[in-house]
Amino acid sequence: MQSGRKQHHAGKPGELALGEIALLKQIRARAAQLSQGVAHGGLRLGIGDDCALLRVGAGEELAVTTDLSIADQHFRLAWHTPESIGHRTLARGLSDLAAMGARPVAAFLSLGLPKDLVQDQKKNWPDKKIWLDRFLDGFFALAGAFQTPLAGGDLAESPVVVADIVLAGAVRRGQALLRSGALPGDLLYVTGTLGGAAAALARLAQLAATARSARPGSQSIAPLRIPGNLQSLVAPHLYPQPRVAQGLWLARRGLASAAIDLSDGLSTDLAHLCEESSVAAEVDAQALPIHLGATLEQALHGGEDYELLFTASPDARVPRSIAGVRVTRIGRILRVRKDRPQVALVTVNGTRPLAPHGWEHFS
Amino acid sequence: MQSGRKQHHAGKPGELALGEIALLKQIRARAAQLSQGVAHGGLRLGIGDDCALLRVGAGEELAVTTDLSIADQHFRLAWHTPESIGHRTLARGLSDLAAMGARPVAAFLSLGLPKDLVQDQKKNWPDKKIWLDRFLDGFFALAGAFQTPLAGGDLAESPVVVADIVLAGAVRRGQALLRSGALPGDLLYVTGTLGGAAAALARLAQLAATARSARPGSQSIAPLRIPGNLQSLVAPHLYPQPRVAQGLWLARRGLASAAIDLSDGLSTDLAHLCEESSVAAEVDAQALPIHLGATLEQALHGGEDYELLFTASPDARVPRSIAGVRVTRIGRILRVRKDRPQVALVTVNGTRPLAPHGWEHFS
Repeated sequence: MQSGRKQHHAGKPGELALGEIALLKQIRARAAQLSQGVAHGGLRLGIGDDCALLRVGAGEELAVTTDLSIADQHFRLAWHTPESIGHRTLARGLSDLAAMGARPVAAFLSLGLPKDLVQDQKKNWPDKKIWLDRFLDGFFALAGAFQTPLAGGDLAESPVVVADIVLAGAVRRGQALLRSGALPGDLLYVTGTLGGAAAALARLAQLAATARSARPGSQSIAPLRIPGNLQSLVAPHLYPQPRVAQGLWLARRGLASAAIDLSDGLSTDLAHLCEESSVAAEVDAQALPIHLGATLEQALHGGEDYELLFTASPDARVPRSIAGVRVTRIGRILRVRKDRPQVALVTVNGTRPLAPHGWEHFS
Repeated sequence: MQSGRKQHHAGKPGELALGEIALLKQIRARAAQLSQGVAHGGLRLGIGDDCALLRVGAGEELAVTTDLSIADQHFRLAWHTPESIGHRTLARGLSDLAAMGARPVAAFLSLGLPKDLVQDQKKNWPDKKIWLDRFLDGFFALAGAFQTPLAGGDLAESPVVVADIVLAGAVRRGQALLRSGALPGDLLYVTGTLGGAAAALARLAQLAATARSARPGSQSIAPLRIPGNLQSLVAPHLYPQPRVAQGLWLARRGLASAAIDLSDGLSTDLAHLCEESSVAAEVDAQALPIHLGATLEQALHGGEDYELLFTASPDARVPRSIAGVRVTRIGRILRVRKDRPQVALVTVNGTRPLAPHGWEHFS
């Protein structure tokens, strides 16, 4: 992790109190604290040099992924607590590692933040922490749970909150779960339940609308207070759980022929898998493990469930649960044919095309 | 590289013409074209899956760095051509690899862009390319020169241009150039010349001021036209050359005891090196290889020269040039003592403290 630099080098002496260097020192100290608690699975040199140094076993290769999150695109300061944004930022990267069957080795975090989020202590936040501290609380809590040290990153002033997460993981050569390995005849499986994040998001939007009408004109960036009895309902969106253990299990057993994580939504991510594998697929609507309180539409198109979608040969003995998470067979892989859609939904009323309806930027 | 996702999954069908998926396909095609031309030094799987897969030799480790660039902080759309911004984004990451003595293996690029930069063809740009295409022209030209395949990244809509670059490189175990290895008695060296980027930036600011007064009120994002006779003067800022070959040479020979790249400016980066090595340093003002047209202040504090600053034992045979770039001895490493500054400048008028005056965010 190194300090940023600008196009002006006018020679401003650093104000250490809450300037970049002081912030980097704080982050480095927190990262070091976390690292003491985790088994060093490959991080040889962390924050403090031009690069971090990672080492993997002779029979392993490194999986690397990056995910960019931007305020009002991927989250809202008025809806999401800083802890949730920190958690979600890391969860996106860990979920990509899970989808490859890789073990987390190190995370890198590039943050662009408005000045007030590192300097103002919001009075309506009882613990008087700055926004960045609370973001890091959420980030490091998940990092600790998944034994993922923070190995570097960057920090810069920005008019809008920007968080780019990089995850590096280790996977045995030849064992990585790819999107491209599905074969006609394979069966289609999903971990956990679908639509929970989308249903939670809809609930969050309702709460925000109610709060807005109660305080018209309020532009506070202090996020919504969620009543205690609703917290479990919004948790699937605010605190998604990446399926790292499940991905590792699948990779080690060699059970899955292809895998992808459900970040954009089943309809979109299954289309990606089919595209990369040059196959078609059929989903059984009645087999879908729809999250309690979610609709079929949310299960089909809602993003950010971060479950694993995978395929396996019909001969493979896929268990009913992996590492404590339910596994459900939801369809099958077919040959591509001109007279049928690449992805189809089978319902009691017949079969219809299932077009990707996840979010697309710039559309 | 995967598509982004938002907090709304309202089910908008993708407009393929210039939407995210089409853009990703274009980038993937360009990355594949580049990869055909470079020797695959470790990239096993590039864009198209949840992660890229990298493999390094049994005796190697992986160096990883990230650098965040934000419009109006690290560059200006009105001053910098898109090609220059693409070049500079990648150069920042390559320079960090150079400072570790690592061979580039793969780059990852996360881009947040306003819609008009991917959809509008500015009429005053004669070739009618969109901004993103020209950014990629600059990016891929440098990537090709340094045999660095683009292995992944992310793409999202953003109110402000944001580019986060990740570089992964390979370095033989134990050979990486660290900031922390300098010892009292070591000599201090720098590659190339200093202050060139800062002098070029000052020239660019002059040109921008002149252009503004000629066209008052103009808010065009089309960048400055640089007269042909001035292009070599502004090149050190617009197109810095990372010292990858020089870093590799130093690492392989085991000649340097410590190294850092000059991104924030000599005064700031030397302070970082001293901090990490727990040493002090003295710089000879008269020995500094000041870039033609630059001032001493620019050489001391101007950032973005991307030269290598390194230390070596007095017994080491450091050559006068490495891979075609001049090497100059500019000072020495000392023991930390309470009665002297950590970094000092020696001039004909005596010795004075050299405080870090590079840019610091949030200050």
